[in-house]
Amino acid sequence: MSAVVDAGTLDASVRRSFDRMWGELAPVGRDTHTGGYRRYAWTREDAELATWFAEQAGRRGLDVVADRAGNQWAWWGSPDDVRVDGRRGGVAIGSHLDSVPDGGAFDGPLGVVSALAVVDALQAARRTPGIPLAVVRFRDEEGARFGIACAGSRLVTAALEPARALALRDADGVTMAEALRTSGHDPGQVGPDPEAMARLIGFVELHVEQGRALADPGRYDQALAAVAVGSDIWPHGRWRVDLPGTANHAGTTRLEDRDDAMLALAGLVVAARESAGRQGCVATVGKVRVEPGGVNAIASHVTAWLDGRGSDERAVRRLVDEVRNAVGVHRGTLTEESWTPATTFDPDLTTRLQDLLGPATPLLGTGAGHDAGILATAGIPSAMLFVRNPTGVSHSPLEHAETADCHLGVAALAAVVADLTGVRP
Amino acid sequence: MSAVVDAGTLDASVRRSFDRMWGELAPVGRDTHTGGYRRYAWTREDAELATWFAEQAGRRGLDVVADRAGNQWAWWGSPDDVRVDGRRGGVAIGSHLDSVPDGGAFDGPLGVVSALAVVDALQAARRTPGIPLAVVRFRDEEGARFGIACAGSRLVTAALEPARALALRDADGVTMAEALRTSGHDPGQVGPDPEAMARLIGFVELHVEQGRALADPGRYDQALAAVAVGSDIWPHGRWRVDLPGTANHAGTTRLEDRDDAMLALAGLVVAARESAGRQGCVATVGKVRVEPGGVNAIASHVTAWLDGRGSDERAVRRLVDEVRNAVGVHRGTLTEESWTPATTFDPDLTTRLQDLLGPATPLLGTGAGHDAGILATAGIPSAMLFVRNPTGVSHSPLEHAETADCHLGVAALAAVVADLTGVRP
Repeated sequence: MSAVVDAGTLDASVRRSFDRMWGELAPVGRDTHTGGYRRYAWTREDAELATWFAEQAGRRGLDVVADRAGNQWAWWGSPDDVRVDGRRGGVAIGSHLDSVPDGGAFDGPLGVVSALAVVDALQAARRTPGIPLAVVRFRDEEGARFGIACAGSRLVTAALEPARALALRDADGVTMAEALRTSGHDPGQVGPDPEAMARLIGFVELHVEQGRALADPGRYDQALAAVAVGSDIWPHGRWRVDLPGTANHAGTTRLEDRDDAMLALAGLVVAARESAGRQGCVATVGKVRVEPGGVNAIASHVTAWLDGRGSDERAVRRLVDEVRNAVGVHRGTLTEESWTPATTFDPDLTTRLQDLLGPATPLLGTGAGHDAGILATAGIPSAMLFVRNPTGVSHSPLEHAETADCHLGVAALAAVVADLTGVRP
Repeated sequence: MSAVVDAGTLDASVRRSFDRMWGELAPVGRDTHTGGYRRYAWTREDAELATWFAEQAGRRGLDVVADRAGNQWAWWGSPDDVRVDGRRGGVAIGSHLDSVPDGGAFDGPLGVVSALAVVDALQAARRTPGIPLAVVRFRDEEGARFGIACAGSRLVTAALEPARALALRDADGVTMAEALRTSGHDPGQVGPDPEAMARLIGFVELHVEQGRALADPGRYDQALAAVAVGSDIWPHGRWRVDLPGTANHAGTTRLEDRDDAMLALAGLVVAARESAGRQGCVATVGKVRVEPGGVNAIASHVTAWLDGRGSDERAVRRLVDEVRNAVGVHRGTLTEESWTPATTFDPDLTTRLQDLLGPATPLLGTGAGHDAGILATAGIPSAMLFVRNPTGVSHSPLEHAETADCHLGVAALAAVVADLTGVRP
């Protein structure tokens, strides 16, 4: 990063505020056994996070409004007022607070806490954004409970049908509609929210890096690689794989008489890995359901999910075709559950961020989906900043970023906000 | 079978009674979607089956007593009375009514219903056993809920420690002690029951065959192979396999940086199958738990269970060693959860049954565990009869035996009871 961004310019009170917020969030939804987080949409933990966010906004004098998917927007200045230049709206910064099962502390919260710390930085310097600024907390980004990632941003941008979303069921059979009702929200309100979207001139999401590109000393000067600007999100998708078998007794059925769905699963896992290697993509089988699931019963059916991604859409498609052929040998079928084409962040905004942060600032593509990608697809100029992750581990209790790098992330985001909103003294 | 056993000799009323009982049990615990049974120990369904059994006993004038594991014994005649020959006790016939997840209708119930039908056959012919006769319904034979098979017979024969059993937890974390209490039983009563066992001169369990040896026309004359006599139960065991990995993001982690426990699972499944083929055993992985279990998360841990059996104990041990070595490559570990050595049924009793049913009656070993094996190990002369299964499928909704074969099974069991108890006119 250039000299423009220097964590040393962050007021000590801002760093303290950052650390205090981090400490407040640490215990929420944390599994004491694994140390990982279980912050799922429309649960008690989610409600606790919503309350925490609203309190933080209130302390800073921001006005919190919820959109039609329950995403929380904390505005500084009124985005609905027409300004002297005849325009309305403002810039949003933020991310999400929910997690995958046993997720880390950074994926999501780092973006929200950094955005609130940017407000602190402006307020500590007694400055005001020239146009309205929002800190946003998106709901249900991980899709851990109902299976669709970025549900909050997809709903408000009309990328996800409300009826389809509300009918999704969690592992206990509870629909999203029921979950909303239980946590005091009206499912009838859920849907596209063009009014909330019209308030956005742009959106910048800061996020922990989820690989270890920035930490690679052979690739970047480590003194300059604490923060990167996002370039694009790889095309990615999820496929359900159904592998049939025939239930039978584990003790009395001869090997040659078996039709064991578990063997088909082994074939799927190996085929997906080998094909990903050939195609230069990544492929993962991370969720599996075995029926009937008895120790002494041959599996009659295995349902598995394939996650496939890569920088080249055609390569991902070839991967999926190869896996489909491999499971076909076992009479298995593969059904697309979601597909997101490559998303390129707003080129003008991305260039502006890179210019601002200095020419040595790395430009990174990512294999992970983000709300910024959903908003970009919906036509809202969007960009991302990534904070270095020394191990690259993510979606795990071991996910980490050094505090010094987190503070540099706040400084970078503050510089971006100052530039985009035209901060006034 | 010899002319001694002929279903034609069964009174039509007995066949009607058999069919009526079958019809009464058909809906209990049946999953309407899969057509399979979910009859687990100490559940509402289990209580319904207990009530049904007690009612059947009452209709036939039998006295029902529960032992210290809740197994139900319906006695005809008093096993505690000293007879003129100075001996006490009697002969028991029966089986269990619980099921594996999505189990079939025959595994267990066929033995109980056939035993009750034998009582009907004696009563229809106005005959009385010369010594007391019990119809027994064992509890928790499958171990589907708490993981230990034959828990009912193991407890009363002191083969399973009460404290260990009561502390077992089901998938919802409920202990067996809590489950007993919820269904109105005192866990403090659970334990060895030498008094109940001392009443047994012998035990014969009729069971549906769980392979398709009897249905093999190349092996047996199909006119004579409706019923077989059991010879022995293969040595068998269960091992828990722990496969470590490192949780990470499915989209952003390079293939070469992955430590994916799901790949280790694929290796386990393939190794178990290949080793079983080499060793002439059977091996099954039918239950798996994947953590964290997210579609977009690389598996950080997989727990899988290996079921291994074979006619030769040393071969099963070699299988387990080979699998242990194979999972060791992935830092996996293998822990024995249970081991049952080969069980040979009482040779005198087995020979007597085969003589009685005719020299062409097949003699079959089995890879499945049974309460009769637990009683045999405890020193109670025990034997088994197997009823032909045309497809060999078991532990599945497709499990089946022809009604004509079931009736032949009742006739065979009636002949055995007449012989063992010295039926008086």
